[in-house]
Amino acid sequence: MKEYVTHAIQDNYADDFSWCYGCGRLNEEGNHFRTGWEGDRTVTYSLPPEKYTAIPGFVYGGFLASFMDCHGTGSCALALHRKNGHEPGDGSVPPRFVTASLQITYSKPTPQGKVLKAIGNVTEIHPKKWKVAVEIYAEDELCASGEVVGVVMPATFTK
Amino acid sequence: MKEYVTHAIQDNYADDFSWCYGCGRLNEEGNHFRTGWEGDRTVTYSLPPEKYTAIPGFVYGGFLASFMDCHGTGSCALALHRKNGHEPGDGSVPPRFVTASLQITYSKPTPQGKVLKAIGNVTEIHPKKWKVAVEIYAEDELCASGEVVGVVMPATFTK
Repeated sequence: MKEYVTHAIQDNYADDFSWCYGCGRLNEEGNHFRTGWEGDRTVTYSLPPEKYTAIPGFVYGGFLASFMDCHGTGSCALALHRKNGHEPGDGSVPPRFVTASLQITYSKPTPQGKVLKAIGNVTEIHPKKWKVAVEIYAEDELCASGEVVGVVMPATFTK
Repeated sequence: MKEYVTHAIQDNYADDFSWCYGCGRLNEEGNHFRTGWEGDRTVTYSLPPEKYTAIPGFVYGGFLASFMDCHGTGSCALALHRKNGHEPGDGSVPPRFVTASLQITYSKPTPQGKVLKAIGNVTEIHPKKWKVAVEIYAEDELCASGEVVGVVMPATFTK
């Protein structure tokens, strides 16, 4: 959703690491989540395609977990990139995080047909390990919240 | 994966509640996860389509969270259904759970091209609220683990 986030961290990932089903710009079948800064908070927006149904009328919880997942790793990358003196769109390649753990609590059924917004607050718990507190809103309604811990991609992810 | 689970709980959900992207038999674009008993443990199998990539060669974490999500709600339904004297395939309609919360820890990159197996141990924490401890294996390798809390679908999910 380019109209919501002008400079997304995912636009600048190295090509080899841009195939993620959730947020990889090169995965044609994926969701293309894009994560950027709004002040000192991170944001990702999505209008979930209708196929991601839980019960008719409501968004699939697995989609929300995926949305939180990529929002989380994107937020970690934004934060470490900023710590290193960079912003998305400045021509530098950001670090690539993977998810160590994810926790999500579904507080309300999430209605379909509304733009979802994930908001993240990122804290460093180790130079290579960052934590993101996430809230997911459907318009003004808080529907889910949780936490993602991301780690800088270890060598075990390269074949 | 019919060859792994003969009688799945999802085969018996009421039609109105069979549209889930993860496990609904009526969602043509979905993953059709099927969950059944193996003794007193619950199991779900999947060979993730290649589009569900994280980094090339490895399964997308959001897919694993989705797999755990539907395995969790299916496991809760199996357990309450058994408590009520029923087994999948006996002609009775099982209860339908939704996810209250989900936690997943990714212990190893999950290789693509291997059949995944989710194993669940279900416990009752309230007549309408059940907890499932989940482990996800790629063949013999434990790749992720966590917990799903499911609740019997509340009235807020019916339009």
